[in-house]
Amino acid sequence: MSTSIRLAIDVMGGDFGPRCIIPAVARSLRQIPDLYVLLVGDAEQLASLCNKHRLPSGRIRCIPTTQIIHASDSPASVLRRKPDASMRVAIEQVRDGHADACLSAGNTGALMVLSRSILGTLDQIERPAIMAALPVAGKACYLLDLGANVDCTALQLVQFAVMGSEAARELSGLQEPRVGLLNIGSEVNKGSQRVREASELLRQHASLNYVGHVEGDGLFRGDADVVVCDGFVGNVVLKASEGLASYMQEELRQALTANLLLRCLSPLLRLALRPMNRRHDPGCYNGASLLGLKGVVVKSHGGADEDAFTAAIDRAAQAGRSNLPQHIARRLGSAGPGSP
Amino acid sequence: MSTSIRLAIDVMGGDFGPRCIIPAVARSLRQIPDLYVLLVGDAEQLASLCNKHRLPSGRIRCIPTTQIIHASDSPASVLRRKPDASMRVAIEQVRDGHADACLSAGNTGALMVLSRSILGTLDQIERPAIMAALPVAGKACYLLDLGANVDCTALQLVQFAVMGSEAARELSGLQEPRVGLLNIGSEVNKGSQRVREASELLRQHASLNYVGHVEGDGLFRGDADVVVCDGFVGNVVLKASEGLASYMQEELRQALTANLLLRCLSPLLRLALRPMNRRHDPGCYNGASLLGLKGVVVKSHGGADEDAFTAAIDRAAQAGRSNLPQHIARRLGSAGPGSP
Repeated sequence: MSTSIRLAIDVMGGDFGPRCIIPAVARSLRQIPDLYVLLVGDAEQLASLCNKHRLPSGRIRCIPTTQIIHASDSPASVLRRKPDASMRVAIEQVRDGHADACLSAGNTGALMVLSRSILGTLDQIERPAIMAALPVAGKACYLLDLGANVDCTALQLVQFAVMGSEAARELSGLQEPRVGLLNIGSEVNKGSQRVREASELLRQHASLNYVGHVEGDGLFRGDADVVVCDGFVGNVVLKASEGLASYMQEELRQALTANLLLRCLSPLLRLALRPMNRRHDPGCYNGASLLGLKGVVVKSHGGADEDAFTAAIDRAAQAGRSNLPQHIARRLGSAGPGSP
Repeated sequence: MSTSIRLAIDVMGGDFGPRCIIPAVARSLRQIPDLYVLLVGDAEQLASLCNKHRLPSGRIRCIPTTQIIHASDSPASVLRRKPDASMRVAIEQVRDGHADACLSAGNTGALMVLSRSILGTLDQIERPAIMAALPVAGKACYLLDLGANVDCTALQLVQFAVMGSEAARELSGLQEPRVGLLNIGSEVNKGSQRVREASELLRQHASLNYVGHVEGDGLFRGDADVVVCDGFVGNVVLKASEGLASYMQEELRQALTANLLLRCLSPLLRLALRPMNRRHDPGCYNGASLLGLKGVVVKSHGGADEDAFTAAIDRAAQAGRSNLPQHIARRLGSAGPGSP
């Protein structure tokens, strides 16, 4: 069992809860032979669904909890008032060495606050960040922060760059990921004081492959493998991109079904468009990493369906296997403005 | 001639200069019967191109200039070193009452600095803002600021809201445009200190139809007619949206031409997709307004082709006709936190 990958999953999080998560776990257990899952949540629902979906008893363990963290719960309140919440207990499995990674589709703010409190932040990191992958030309462009830090100092942006670079190396297998700083122009004098300061620090950083400023459209031209920004900008850009992509897909669907002849050809069209849709399905890229913690925590989209949650399990398993926190800690111990 | 609309156009700006702008002007003169154009730029090129495209001599006037503002010119340097730049002279036509609006596809920073210096800022406005329309479901969603102000105070964001609301009323004919504040969550406690303060001021503002926070995906769900944010966020979101839209269009084109049968059907597909493409062609929405000045200035995309520049002429003519600065000044004179 020592070489297997052990995942603690908060089955009560997300819009669809265990009804969506348990079938996704069943599928992942078939696809990942050395996966072992700790299912954390309501005992009764777990028993019934594990039975229904025939989860192999030797590769799962159910950890019963009695409390649920809701989307409306304030991050501060969950720290004190919900000691037996499924999300908390799932994170504790990582802290106690029972799991290599934790996965939840619940309240992002609560997940971050609980993770910081239970696992702690890496010594050289001021604030953890949330990182996700944008699908660009069949490759991942990692963007961080996505909302954990509304305002960031220049030094924090540099720390994000180091974490993102290490994560891209581990998750995408890139030797020297190209790191860019999101900005409103390519010239060095562009952007806020903070962004200009970060740009200067990044340029001096010996161990980063810094490629300079990346503008909004550069995100979708593959100008960098990792793009760094504060959490306000990152969150708005990510959500705007998701919103625009699904809006355009719906427009396309309507355009293609408005024409009678094209409706007859729809099986052919669906077939032709399938590779493109698959390359850009946000579900395939589901699973954001909380970076800078002393343990692996992955956040699934709250609205993830079975397919998307399966993708998040893949991502969490990969992150858990790579032991990303250790790599980041080692990298930050090396010389550079990001180190203390 | 008193009821005609008079446009001063900087023909030397943009990636393609007069070769693209003069044919666009020719087309606009055919489409807008009461349009009168002051063409500002190099005398020789103007003479040759006006002749070639048979511009009606009674409806144009050429104003020869000897200097050009380049994309690489710093906004500060253009103030002092280029007294005979086409962009400057075009703006001066508005100041001197010879034109109702000025249009340029040149350096945005220079256009803003020159406009502020030559026309001046409205009394109640701290900083002008740049506003453009995102095409959403065949309607315009106005977004501002788009890069004139990297950092904004809460009060400036409120001023943007008032200017945007008035502009949407004039340009889209909406009686009570819904105004939203771009943020990373819908709850009142979300976002930076500055954004929370702006939200509070906007809620108290009697004359605005304020609908609260709009998230990134809300931009493309039509959650508001006007969305307000600082220039850093707005610039990144606008460019990311443009980048993603053209990336997805290219992906679609490739997917549809990869299949032999679909290649044979391509005339039909083009026909079916034409309304959708037209509704989302960024060119159709070309023409950003510089709001808060004592005159109408419109910025065309630097890479605008003939179609897109024609759209910008339409926009500038419409803005010039409505006398937007007067409406904004009147609105700001009324009670509300935006007034002094």
